[in-house]
Formats: sequence, C-alpha cells, structure tokens
Amino acid sequence: MRSRRSADVPTLVAHAREGSARAVARLITLVENADPSLREVMAALAPHSGHARIIGLTGSPGVGKSTTTSMLVGALRAEGKRVGVLAVDPTSPFSGGALLGDRIRLVEHSLDREVYMRSMASRGHLGGLSWSTPQALRVLDAAGCDVVIVETVGVGQSEVEVAGLADTTVVLLAPGMGDGIQAAKAGILEVGDVFVVNKADRDGADITVREIRQMISLGDRTESGLWRPPVIKAIAERGEGAGDLMEGLNNHLAWMTEHGVLHQRRIDRASREIEAIALRQVRARMGEVRHGRSLDDLAAEVVAGQQDPYAAADRVIAAL
Amino acid sequence: MRSRRSADVPTLVAHAREGSARAVARLITLVENADPSLREVMAALAPHSGHARIIGLTGSPGVGKSTTTSMLVGALRAEGKRVGVLAVDPTSPFSGGALLGDRIRLVEHSLDREVYMRSMASRGHLGGLSWSTPQALRVLDAAGCDVVIVETVGVGQSEVEVAGLADTTVVLLAPGMGDGIQAAKAGILEVGDVFVVNKADRDGADITVREIRQMISLGDRTESGLWRPPVIKAIAERGEGAGDLMEGLNNHLAWMTEHGVLHQRRIDRASREIEAIALRQVRARMGEVRHGRSLDDLAAEVVAGQQDPYAAADRVIAAL
Repeated sequence: MRSRRSADVPTLVAHAREGSARAVARLITLVENADPSLREVMAALAPHSGHARIIGLTGSPGVGKSTTTSMLVGALRAEGKRVGVLAVDPTSPFSGGALLGDRIRLVEHSLDREVYMRSMASRGHLGGLSWSTPQALRVLDAAGCDVVIVETVGVGQSEVEVAGLADTTVVLLAPGMGDGIQAAKAGILEVGDVFVVNKADRDGADITVREIRQMISLGDRTESGLWRPPVIKAIAERGEGAGDLMEGLNNHLAWMTEHGVLHQRRIDRASREIEAIALRQVRARMGEVRHGRSLDDLAAEVVAGQQDPYAAADRVIAAL
Repeated sequence: MRSRRSADVPTLVAHAREGSARAVARLITLVENADPSLREVMAALAPHSGHARIIGLTGSPGVGKSTTTSMLVGALRAEGKRVGVLAVDPTSPFSGGALLGDRIRLVEHSLDREVYMRSMASRGHLGGLSWSTPQALRVLDAAGCDVVIVETVGVGQSEVEVAGLADTTVVLLAPGMGDGIQAAKAGILEVGDVFVVNKADRDGADITVREIRQMISLGDRTESGLWRPPVIKAIAERGEGAGDLMEGLNNHLAWMTEHGVLHQRRIDRASREIEAIALRQVRARMGEVRHGRSLDDLAAEVVAGQQDPYAAADRVIAAL
C-alpha cells in the first residue's frame, strides 16, 4: 500500500478532475498541512482553474449560515451545477469533520456526488485564511465545481478576508440581534454584495431590512460603483427566499461581468494569493535565520536596549 | 504652532520620559498611524526600555475585563507603581476614545498622573496586534511604567497573540458562561499563567473553578514546566480577590525569574517584534512591486491559468 505522504500528485489531480471526492479531500488535506508537494499540486491544477464562481457567505453565529448554505446548494443543484462548500472556521484549531459534524442541514446533500463539502481550520496557519483558503478553492475549481461557497463565521476580520476571496459576498443577518449596529461596526456593510435577512418570520425583520437599506445608502460604496446590494428576506429553514437569493446573485454576476469588476476582483485575489505565498516563503527563511540563532541574538540585544527593533529588522532583511 | 506631523522626536521622547501623558499619547498615536518617524522614535526609546513588567489580560466579552483591570490598577497603585493600561480591540476599526469611553470603572484612575490609559485598534493594521502593540508597549515602558496591562477581548486568535506579548497572561472567566468548554476550544488554557474566575458570587463559580483546575491538570503544559497556574476567585466589582491576584502574579514573576523563563519570553517577544517589522517592510516592497503593475501582471497570468501562484511568488521574491 502506498503511504499517504508519497501521494502521486499527477494521479491525484487526474482523479480529482474525474470527480473523485476522495482525491479532492486528499488535495485539500495537503493544503491544510502545508505539504511540500503543494507547489507541484498548484502547478498541475493551474491550467484547469478559473472556471468556478466563488460565493462568500458570512454572518454572526446564530444567523443560520449552514441552513442558508444548504438552501443555496439545493437551488444550484436544481440548475444542475456542481457545487463545492468550504466552511472555514477562523476561530477553531480543529479541522476536518469537527465543524461539519453539527451541520445537520447539509446532510441532505451529503450523498450527492455533485456536491463537495469540506471544513477547514485556519487558525494557527501562518497567513491564516489568506494563505490556505485560496489554494483549497483552487482545488475545488480544478475539480470541476461550477460554484464554490466559502462559508465563514463573521468574527474578527474574517468577513473582510472572505470578501477578498469571493466573486460575490453574501452577508447574512437575522432580526433582533442588533445586527445593524454590529454590521456597521464590523465593516460588514462595505463587504456585502448581497444581504440576506434570514429568519424573516421573526419580529423585527422589516426593521432590520430597513436599517440595512438605510446604512447601505449612507455608506461609501465607491468600489462597487453602480451596484446597489439587494436586501433579501429569507426563511432558509423552509427554503423560502431561495429564488430571490439566486436572482440577487445572478444580477450581481451580470453586473460585475458588464463592468469588468469580475475580472478585476479575480486579479486582486490572485495578487493577494501570490503575496501570501511569497510572504510565507520569506517568513520561512526568517525562521531559518532564527533557527540559526542570529534572530535570537538580535532579539537579546533588543531586550537589553542595545539595539532598536527597526535596526534589528534591517539586519534580518539583509541576511535573507 | 508646530504641526502634528513635524513632531520633534527627541523632544517628544524626553517629555514622555519626564511623565508627560500628552507626549506618551502622541507617541502611541505615531505607532497607530504607522508614522514614518517611528524608526527614529524606537531608536530613541531603546536605551530606556526593558524595565516594565507586561501583564496580559484576556477573556470573553462580559467576563468583567475592565473592572478587573481597574482592580489590578488600584492594587498596583497602592504599592506605588506607575501603571500603563493598553486596551487593544482586535475587532474594531475604531481607536482612541472609542473603547475607553464606556469603561466606567477605569474612570476612577483617570485623574491619577501615575496611570496611563490608552485604547488602540489593531484591525486593518498590517500585521495587526503583532506589529503595533509591542511598539506601543515600548513607549509605555520607556515612559517609566513599572507595569503595563495589555487588555484584549478573547476572540479569534487575539488571546494567543496577547499571551505572546506579555510576561504573564491572566485569563479571565465567569461562571455559567460555558467558559470551560470555550476555553478548551479556543486554546485559552494553554496561554493562561493565572486564571481568574470573576463574578464569583454567582451560581456555578465553584464548578467553573473545578473545571478549569481539571483541564489544567489534563493539559500539556510543557512550556511552563513546573508552573501550575493558580485559579483565583474574584468579585472585581467589589475589589474582592485583588490580594490573591497580586499574589498569583508575584508568584509567577518569581517562578519565571528563578527558571530563566522571563528572559526567554522577552527574547521570544523581541524576535517576533523584529520579525513583524521585517515582514511589514518586505510587504511594503511587494506593494511597490504591485504598484509598478508587475504583481498585477503576474496575477493576470495566474487568473488565466498560464502560471501557478507558487511560480508567481518566486518571481515576486526574485524582484524584491
């Protein structure tokens, strides 16, 4: 039996392209583990990438992200699309099944061969979301997914990061969670291309919709130019709002294509991906410098007040 | 009148060392703004740094961080210490007064000339906490603070970052918040040197104390070697537990000093600080590369599948 580590990259990539969920899973595991073979993997995937549409989905805990994702997966499957779901938890050091374990709603799609689901931990990853997620998306893209949904909980700056990874970002809110203010504070308004007020049968749904609409019209949305994000009401648990959401997503895609925004977003995304890989490489070299004790020696001088950290940083860069 | 931007660094540093709260505030603002004069500032501060003891304080929202900080400030002031408080909000794009505005408990110290208080936003900062906070700590250290408390809300990986900045990390919990499990999940157990169960008059306080003690004894605490973190009960609002907390902190300091851990932590901290400054510099150069369109050109090739991101990253590094 061949060991896991000596995976034959061309074979693995070929199997992933033929639709093997197992091969896809193994490739994403290589990304998670920052495996040295990734360089070869990405080179093999490159000619087959650029097809998938990437949809980001973010919101506070409890707004119904997994139910909404499931609703969206259903709608996309009804159109015959192959769908990937990448659930990224920026707060958890755990990966693999941990996150999807409690995602009951997604179970309904778990036996569908045209749906790939995967959770990924980004915490502890050097470079976090910005390093690992684009490469996992690249795997799903090359595996023939028409649409990949990146789902992440909106804490810290994760929702800004997920927006940077997606063609279209869906921001999910729920009535009565003080989400309006939260959204304004967290900068969620600036990143949303489509807003969904889920659990719209609850009290205050119309107020939340109105608040979001007002804040959007007040906000500075220069990057999006003419795009006015729709605010959609949904009850994802009952599948209500799926049509409106699909319409909102398709309108945004059409608008982006028409205005050259889609291409520019993808260029920006690739720039950040290249930058993250380059920074990781530089940092690894610094780690070698450190392992060679010279960074620690500089640090000891800084601790003793013999040298300031900027001068020390200059010497580290010079040593690279 | 001299403009803010043309601040005379040697004068500002001299004033800060003489105890001018205004000069300290202006220096920290330079850090927040990533002002070009920082290099000169840090060089001027270096000979005067290394005196302050850095205490990190972290916990979930609602556990009573500001009340506990205030209690600790009071206890330190009673010993005649000069105290700095740096409140870092990893989730907020706002800075300055925004955070301290609602910190009623700290107001009691706000007229005390021997207490510096400052809130800082880290979000959006290139390098986040790891870049800006150590430099702000350096300002407070050189300004003659005996102790600096870095307070941050435990979300995302902020509590791990704050532990990396501190000599001693205090993890704050409260009964009945499911904090035990939260702590285990978030990796808070590994970073705490001293645990405080605040609001100890609430139901379940003893259960929380027991849970934390059990998890500590189960956990792998190799880095701390022989140190067994105390779990202290407190009612910070009434000042109860201040003595136990001070004792726990002093015991940890004595243990660290005895075992050489304090010096090693400071070396590690300075290493990370140097690394963060160096990485920021490398990234700025990449930004120049990007502005010169070459990164975008590479990105366009990656989007088109003509090149993989690793090969592109190699070319970016070669161009630096």
